[in-house]
Amino acid sequence: MTPQERAIRVGEVMFAVDIAARETMGIQIVSVAPGHAVLRMAVKPLHLNGHQICHGGFIFTLADTTFAYACNSHNKNAVAAGCSIEFLKPAHAGDVLTCEGVEQTLQGRYGIYDMKVSNQKAEVVAMFRGKSAVIPGTVFPEEESA
Amino acid sequence: MTPQERAIRVGEVMFAVDIAARETMGIQIVSVAPGHAVLRMAVKPLHLNGHQICHGGFIFTLADTTFAYACNSHNKNAVAAGCSIEFLKPAHAGDVLTCEGVEQTLQGRYGIYDMKVSNQKAEVVAMFRGKSAVIPGTVFPEEESA
Amino acid sequence: MTPQERAIRVGEVMFAVDIAARETMGIQIVSVAPGHAVLRMAVKPLHLNGHQICHGGFIFTLADTTFAYACNSHNKNAVAAGCSIEFLKPAHAGDVLTCEGVEQTLQGRYGIYDMKVSNQKAEVVAMFRGKSAVIPGTVFPEEESA
Amino acid sequence: MTPQERAIRVGEVMFAVDIAARETMGIQIVSVAPGHAVLRMAVKPLHLNGHQICHGGFIFTLADTTFAYACNSHNKNAVAAGCSIEFLKPAHAGDVLTCEGVEQTLQGRYGIYDMKVSNQKAEVVAMFRGKSAVIPGTVFPEEESA
Repeated sequence: MTPQERAIRVGEVMFAVDIAARETMGIQIVSVAPGHAVLRMAVKPLHLNGHQICHGGFIFTLADTTFAYACNSHNKNAVAAGCSIEFLKPAHAGDVLTCEGVEQTLQGRYGIYDMKVSNQKAEVVAMFRGKSAVIPGTVFPEEESA
Repeated sequence: MTPQERAIRVGEVMFAVDIAARETMGIQIVSVAPGHAVLRMAVKPLHLNGHQICHGGFIFTLADTTFAYACNSHNKNAVAAGCSIEFLKPAHAGDVLTCEGVEQTLQGRYGIYDMKVSNQKAEVVAMFRGKSAVIPGTVFPEEESA
Repeated sequence: MTPQERAIRVGEVMFAVDIAARETMGIQIVSVAPGHAVLRMAVKPLHLNGHQICHGGFIFTLADTTFAYACNSHNKNAVAAGCSIEFLKPAHAGDVLTCEGVEQTLQGRYGIYDMKVSNQKAEVVAMFRGKSAVIPGTVFPEEESA
Repeated sequence: MTPQERAIRVGEVMFAVDIAARETMGIQIVSVAPGHAVLRMAVKPLHLNGHQICHGGFIFTLADTTFAYACNSHNKNAVAAGCSIEFLKPAHAGDVLTCEGVEQTLQGRYGIYDMKVSNQKAEVVAMFRGKSAVIPGTVFPEEESA
């Protein structure tokens, strides 16, 4: 199993049971690779807050989900320890948000990942930074899949 | 209209149109006061990610919503400029999360608000800090309501 | 030894060898208590950047030092895992900056501490949040001091 | 004057009066380019805290200074609005820290810049993210220099 195959498999396994992202938010996977993930979410009425813009929490949710797929892509369980987000532009109903997540560093148990959320005009909507910690276990049993 | 009456009215007006928080997430308002808000969310299956715990993005959404109610409570429109969150404990289906938001400072246009998310055992699940910027406009027309 | 005596002793022991804070920056301890510390720094020419204001890095250093004294005050070694700071007002030569640090939560190994830096007019200059992790060891040998 | 010449000139003008960075910390400029800067600092006894490691505040100061040179490199005055840092490895006396700062986005008045601090073994010591806001004025009078 190559690192790329492993990352794709991790994405499939996680997505299958990720009710929050898949069903509640309507997030889709575009691609997963080692230390890297791209996810997408179309902004619908269910995402709108009282200002008729996408709730910042849901933009965060898209980025946090992308973070999860990127930092688990090596098939070692990893959890978010802390995150920060900067909101740069509002998103409206009908916008399609794409989030790209990139591993910046992974040293020992701790990693830093950067997520950039852009709209269909390639305008940056938000930037998110997450710190991960590796914990025991794997996303899928590596022996069976090897 | 007293500051407390104004804060309550802001909360009512915002909540009435806040589809994301009220309908999608199932968030409820416990109280709103000047520079202060308490909101609550019961963790349900729709909130669970692949680890069968509440998606961090939805804990963020609860905190971010509380932040919005606290920083708009003076009936001056305010938006989130940036936020950070530290996740301290997972939340499971059946947990009831309460988020208290407090204004730490409001100087000129910029404010800092701290949100603490606790579960029904009073354990701290997450801490969130938000920076707000006041923008032109009000949540409801103050003249009409005065 | 009471918790308060322990906190004071931790402060003395740390400060005695803290060249960076004491000599390079000119920081002074005002008080240390369990989960709490107050430190002070007068802004001098050595602190000024090219805009003739106190370098943001030195305001951070005052806050980060206060954080260290607060999170080590239980005489269990603790280190900073991550920090964020919001700069609210510039500080000028002659200003006296006071930083108060407060423990917000300490659950197991991880703590969250908030530092508020104010000037002599009680204006908030910066707010800093730090996350600490307890590591093995103590600041001073507890048996000897007991 | 090309963008590159402008960035170099900004760096020279800022550095000449930056007592805090140049004299107090011993920071040196390696390079400045549009939206980009590299600075260096050798860790000396004056930087050490009570654990005999470089004070986190001074690692922050190196990163914050790099941020300032990167975000002012277009010769439009910019200030730090908020910053976060993650500490990944300690730095010891004798280490040489290099900080590279990169502009991630600059939309209208607001920019996001990422700084990575590495030691002489290319190990990542810290990662810093800064949010800048452009304010009126220039670092040097553009007409004179053109």
